[in-house]
Amino acid sequence: MGEFELIRNFFAAAPCAQGGEGVALGIGDDCALLSVPAGEQLAISTDTLVAGVHFADPCDPFLLGQRALAVAASDLAAMGATPLAFTLALTLPHNDASWLQAFAHGLNLMAQQCALRLIGGDTTRGPLCLTLTVFGRVPTGQALTRGGAQVGDLLCVGGELGNGAGALPLVLGQRTAEPAIAQPLLDHYWSPKPQLALGQYLRNKASSALDISDGLLADCGHIAAASSVRLRVEREALPLSSALLAFLGQEGAREAALSGGDDYVLAFTLPPGELPGVLAAHGSVRVIGQVLAGQGVVLVDATGRDITPAHRGYQHFPETP
Amino acid sequence: MGEFELIRNFFAAAPCAQGGEGVALGIGDDCALLSVPAGEQLAISTDTLVAGVHFADPCDPFLLGQRALAVAASDLAAMGATPLAFTLALTLPHNDASWLQAFAHGLNLMAQQCALRLIGGDTTRGPLCLTLTVFGRVPTGQALTRGGAQVGDLLCVGGELGNGAGALPLVLGQRTAEPAIAQPLLDHYWSPKPQLALGQYLRNKASSALDISDGLLADCGHIAAASSVRLRVEREALPLSSALLAFLGQEGAREAALSGGDDYVLAFTLPPGELPGVLAAHGSVRVIGQVLAGQGVVLVDATGRDITPAHRGYQHFPETP
Repeated sequence: MGEFELIRNFFAAAPCAQGGEGVALGIGDDCALLSVPAGEQLAISTDTLVAGVHFADPCDPFLLGQRALAVAASDLAAMGATPLAFTLALTLPHNDASWLQAFAHGLNLMAQQCALRLIGGDTTRGPLCLTLTVFGRVPTGQALTRGGAQVGDLLCVGGELGNGAGALPLVLGQRTAEPAIAQPLLDHYWSPKPQLALGQYLRNKASSALDISDGLLADCGHIAAASSVRLRVEREALPLSSALLAFLGQEGAREAALSGGDDYVLAFTLPPGELPGVLAAHGSVRVIGQVLAGQGVVLVDATGRDITPAHRGYQHFPETP
Repeated sequence: MGEFELIRNFFAAAPCAQGGEGVALGIGDDCALLSVPAGEQLAISTDTLVAGVHFADPCDPFLLGQRALAVAASDLAAMGATPLAFTLALTLPHNDASWLQAFAHGLNLMAQQCALRLIGGDTTRGPLCLTLTVFGRVPTGQALTRGGAQVGDLLCVGGELGNGAGALPLVLGQRTAEPAIAQPLLDHYWSPKPQLALGQYLRNKASSALDISDGLLADCGHIAAASSVRLRVEREALPLSSALLAFLGQEGAREAALSGGDDYVLAFTLPPGELPGVLAAHGSVRVIGQVLAGQGVVLVDATGRDITPAHRGYQHFPETP
């Protein structure tokens, strides 16, 4: 048995690989088999993380395992899907037992938090790189896409913005901060909380949704393009954490929230009549703007003045939906 | 729009990304959506190919695209699944338009041959590496696994063995041969024909199946372990191509067939009563042995003498099913 076959067996023995509802056949055959109940569709998303590009190398393998799966699961949240399973394609330069154990531990913890079962994958030798493919179930026709925003809807986010981008100088060792500031930011970066319950709650309520990974303005551009509407974002309404404000100041915190990415918080559009119910069920939700006729994204200050950062071109983002 | 977003749009415009039966939502949202008819399960397999490990770098991107998808689709054939869709996670060192165009062309051609639709993926910067995840449909309970071989069954293969391994010295430029010999071997290597029709035909007929990727003896070891049986392989019965025999001679051709891997031909076990029907429908099928009580794999010569290569340890392959 080769060393990489040993690694496959190591993952096959992981707690999250022991099957569960919907997993008809897990690791160990040519394919895994998933059962999708009648009246439901399967939601599928793939994310790749490359060492030195998407994460520092070396990094803490426990945190990497946790973060990689959380980031992938966030795409299921964005569709309103119920988590089901995932595959892991892991390319490793060598077989390092303690690295693998720590990585698998982080992966397992997040898999349990997200109710995701490992059903297969591939382990190969090469430069460190991970590709995770996640699977979720969603009632047919109820998936939240980017394409349904209607003029008059509210623009909402699921929680505080900018923490992921704010943490980056700490992650990269470029800056330090006292623990009361650094810890919540680093926690957000290394262990994002995919908003799975919120996504499922928003089925048949939100008119469009996505998870913020590229930065709020860029991601709002995706909704605007796919829905053929204009999104108006109110700078004063951005929810910012006290740790982020203490670390970057108001200007820096806003910049991190608007353009930083790595939030993995949902952004969605909502008919105004749905707002009270959503707020009652998910207290972290904030209204940050409106859906208007037109195209692109406009950022406004407290007086309603257009302060869109023109150099980033968000208003005329040439995106193919 | 970043260069890697441009690449995503490039793939979204590919013919194989234009949706089809079962694809409820393709490229462009947080997740793709697949519809699985009631009474069917979804078969899923993930394969990673790393430059310099699984293929030479540089290599012909057209051939790479074709081969990568064929190899992945072969796992669907092994389960008896009907091809549905695939995702592509492509990590590239840089954005090379002519490379991408040729790669996408090869991928597209194979996608059309296999009736697979591109529904999503991720494009990232880094060392060249591909992860393909393929999806197929199979009637609930009818998937061909490795675990059902019964004592008394015949051991069969779907066609000629050893061509993939035989081609390797040609692929690596270590040897040359006249075109009449080299071409069929190189064709087999760069454009394997996943035995999708055979796999689907074998539903409810074969007792176990897989596709030969690690080499016949090693893969028979997987069936033996998963089914708790012993497989007897007759060396004289191995189907060998005239090109392989001309290139490697009888001994070399047999070694390539037994241990070489990269065949992507199905190996399966079959109750004897099913054989006439299978042969009538799939003339390339050959009986190469029997299923016995016991464990492991035994190779025999024309006289029935045990000639299992002991140093490879196939008889006691310590495999976890």
